[in-house]
Amino acid sequence: MQRLDSSQADFDARLEALTAWEEQLDHAVNDTVREVLADVALRGDAAVLDYTARFDRLEAQSVSELEISDAQLQEALAEIPADQRSALEAAADRIRSYHQHQIQDSWQYQDEQGNVLGQQITPLDRAGIYVPGGKASYPSSVLMNAIPAKVAGVGEIIMVVPAPGGDLNPMVLAAAAIAEVDRVFTIGGAQAVAALAHGTETVPAVDKIVGPGNIYVATAKRQVFGRVGIDMIAGPSEILVICDGSTDPQWVAMDLFSQAEHDENAQAIVLCPDAAYLERVAAAVDALLPDMERQEIIATSLKGRGAMIKTVDLADAVEISNRLAPEHLELSVAEPQRLLPDIRHAGAIFMGAYTSESLGDYCAGPNHVLPTSRSARFSSPLGVYDFQKRSSLIMCSEQGVQVLGQVASVLARGESLEAHARSAEYRLKK
Amino acid sequence: MQRLDSSQADFDARLEALTAWEEQLDHAVNDTVREVLADVALRGDAAVLDYTARFDRLEAQSVSELEISDAQLQEALAEIPADQRSALEAAADRIRSYHQHQIQDSWQYQDEQGNVLGQQITPLDRAGIYVPGGKASYPSSVLMNAIPAKVAGVGEIIMVVPAPGGDLNPMVLAAAAIAEVDRVFTIGGAQAVAALAHGTETVPAVDKIVGPGNIYVATAKRQVFGRVGIDMIAGPSEILVICDGSTDPQWVAMDLFSQAEHDENAQAIVLCPDAAYLERVAAAVDALLPDMERQEIIATSLKGRGAMIKTVDLADAVEISNRLAPEHLELSVAEPQRLLPDIRHAGAIFMGAYTSESLGDYCAGPNHVLPTSRSARFSSPLGVYDFQKRSSLIMCSEQGVQVLGQVASVLARGESLEAHARSAEYRLKK
Repeated sequence: MQRLDSSQADFDARLEALTAWEEQLDHAVNDTVREVLADVALRGDAAVLDYTARFDRLEAQSVSELEISDAQLQEALAEIPADQRSALEAAADRIRSYHQHQIQDSWQYQDEQGNVLGQQITPLDRAGIYVPGGKASYPSSVLMNAIPAKVAGVGEIIMVVPAPGGDLNPMVLAAAAIAEVDRVFTIGGAQAVAALAHGTETVPAVDKIVGPGNIYVATAKRQVFGRVGIDMIAGPSEILVICDGSTDPQWVAMDLFSQAEHDENAQAIVLCPDAAYLERVAAAVDALLPDMERQEIIATSLKGRGAMIKTVDLADAVEISNRLAPEHLELSVAEPQRLLPDIRHAGAIFMGAYTSESLGDYCAGPNHVLPTSRSARFSSPLGVYDFQKRSSLIMCSEQGVQVLGQVASVLARGESLEAHARSAEYRLKK
Repeated sequence: MQRLDSSQADFDARLEALTAWEEQLDHAVNDTVREVLADVALRGDAAVLDYTARFDRLEAQSVSELEISDAQLQEALAEIPADQRSALEAAADRIRSYHQHQIQDSWQYQDEQGNVLGQQITPLDRAGIYVPGGKASYPSSVLMNAIPAKVAGVGEIIMVVPAPGGDLNPMVLAAAAIAEVDRVFTIGGAQAVAALAHGTETVPAVDKIVGPGNIYVATAKRQVFGRVGIDMIAGPSEILVICDGSTDPQWVAMDLFSQAEHDENAQAIVLCPDAAYLERVAAAVDALLPDMERQEIIATSLKGRGAMIKTVDLADAVEISNRLAPEHLELSVAEPQRLLPDIRHAGAIFMGAYTSESLGDYCAGPNHVLPTSRSARFSSPLGVYDFQKRSSLIMCSEQGVQVLGQVASVLARGESLEAHARSAEYRLKK
């Protein structure tokens, strides 16, 4: 891992270089995806079947054949090992109960002139959830994407998950059963995103598509954005750990690994004012690494993108953290609540030595879909609010309009919008 | 205006054809914008000066020369006509007071095992507001974009407004003074978006860019999305009026005009179960149109994209409205509150005959930046929530982690993420 010191003269430039991440535009992928989207929009089910046969080596006569029935989901739930089932159920309960705190209520109020103003909150009619198949098939992802939608009151949740060569992860199906997903289709890639965005004879069109995927899926989501809503496009996962030296260095080392094991581009950074403590974390990293199942991925990630940063003090560490706006921030310090008010940007904040990031990934309750690549400066974890939207309400009284109509008339004429002005003036008493 | 009847056999197809709107991808614009963005990212101020001279015919030695001082803003405020000033101030007060209802609060709670869970709300550090110059220069837009940011507690608001050939609308500057915008630069186009997204020597980088603009601005916003947040890309403006026949037909006609006068692609649709009433609205349209300043734009819009739809009853009208998810929905009926619970998708809902859409455009209080092109199915008016973001909070107690750590361990091993499992297991009592 790279060693940096925030008091170095070129620290800012080094930090910038370490954390720079620019999504590469891939024109070939862009063009392929554009073709797939247009084809599915035009030919519907037939196109979905063609691409599924070609890309996922899965032949079917109709898209209905690719639908997983509720009975099959229940069967998967009944068949997985009991400890996995109860862990999924416990996680789902906690996720549900946390997200219930995010429900927003409609409101109305009356102003002095008797005008009613307000905001009506409504859920989406239909949400689509993309779940990757194959290697990176994560049941926790099903819970984290579907439960907020369910809590928001979304009418129907459609999940798509590719089954390359027919392979499906039973835990993913079990998680769909627990999260009460309404329909599941074993389709994936850009063709699945296209089917959800445009609708086909069999797959219903949705209003928003969420969930992680490979570059084809991400590119397809970008392209259908506007026709439907999408969640953020995720960059590599990141963790930033602020230490005061009070946490067992092994714990911190393992927390860094838990980020680094995701992929070679994942970023794990530890900040501490105590140089000697950082050396102990480094020693723990060296000692633990050879034993890890994913040691090659972890080593590549830590070598290329990991860093240990000696800071002036904890306030300095917090300031650097705010600059990076990390996806995951661990405050591995004795008094995390004291630092909290100064944290301006972070996807999720894990407070105190006992709160490893992995608890949040699975079962603490908050969402694990979080803003990456410094986007926590302006965006939020996936939540119930992503599956609800607001309508403004205005109801003017006859009395109220006598005031508002005058103001609107002056401003509309100032903008040379005569019909705006006259439509307000009609409501004024002669 | 086209006449439709919801009981016609081919009504769905006709409605679809009438309301279809697909943003055209313009490759030439895309390429130009990409070039401008890259150049400003590389050369900063120098590039901004070059493009401003070329596209806006405005020569300057430095970008500082293009900054409008606070004194100049205050001067504009002092110089505009008194009725315009007091109208702007009245509108600003109402917009501020409505948006204060949208402020979200941070929350924390403790679960049974003593774990603390919560959500911390923080404002953006810096927001950029794009304000079009020239013909379509709307002071109301300044208020509607800047005030929610201010109410959210955004640290610094940077406004950009092109001044083609040096021309600036004093009402726009006065509105910036009233909305307490922090800094104003007279730059525009893709170069202004680039300066805000990347920062230059003089223009500070922002975290989110909002505000309307031409195709170059919209394309630039799309391209910088991810590096910074953006608001929705707006399509043509739309109004849908549901009538029960109780409103003066002239009022309804003028409300349709107030949408149609925006541009030739704007869409104005009126729905009513009473065919005779629709004829009276049509007669009012014919009678009033020749007198309108913008009659050509209005006529083109109504002819190409306007429609009068005879519905079976009011419930049928509401159902059609939900399908179209209009930006502006007028419930021009005697009892609008009765229809409200059935409205599932709309940007803003104007209730009762006195509530013309133009009141909402200027001064009722709610925002006039609203989701267009059916995106009200999944998105909301611009609001305080667009300038705040959330961080999840998790603080596990030693006791709490004994439960959560077990669950996380089982699920992490189920996903073959060993470091995730071990980092949770470290926190368990041996």
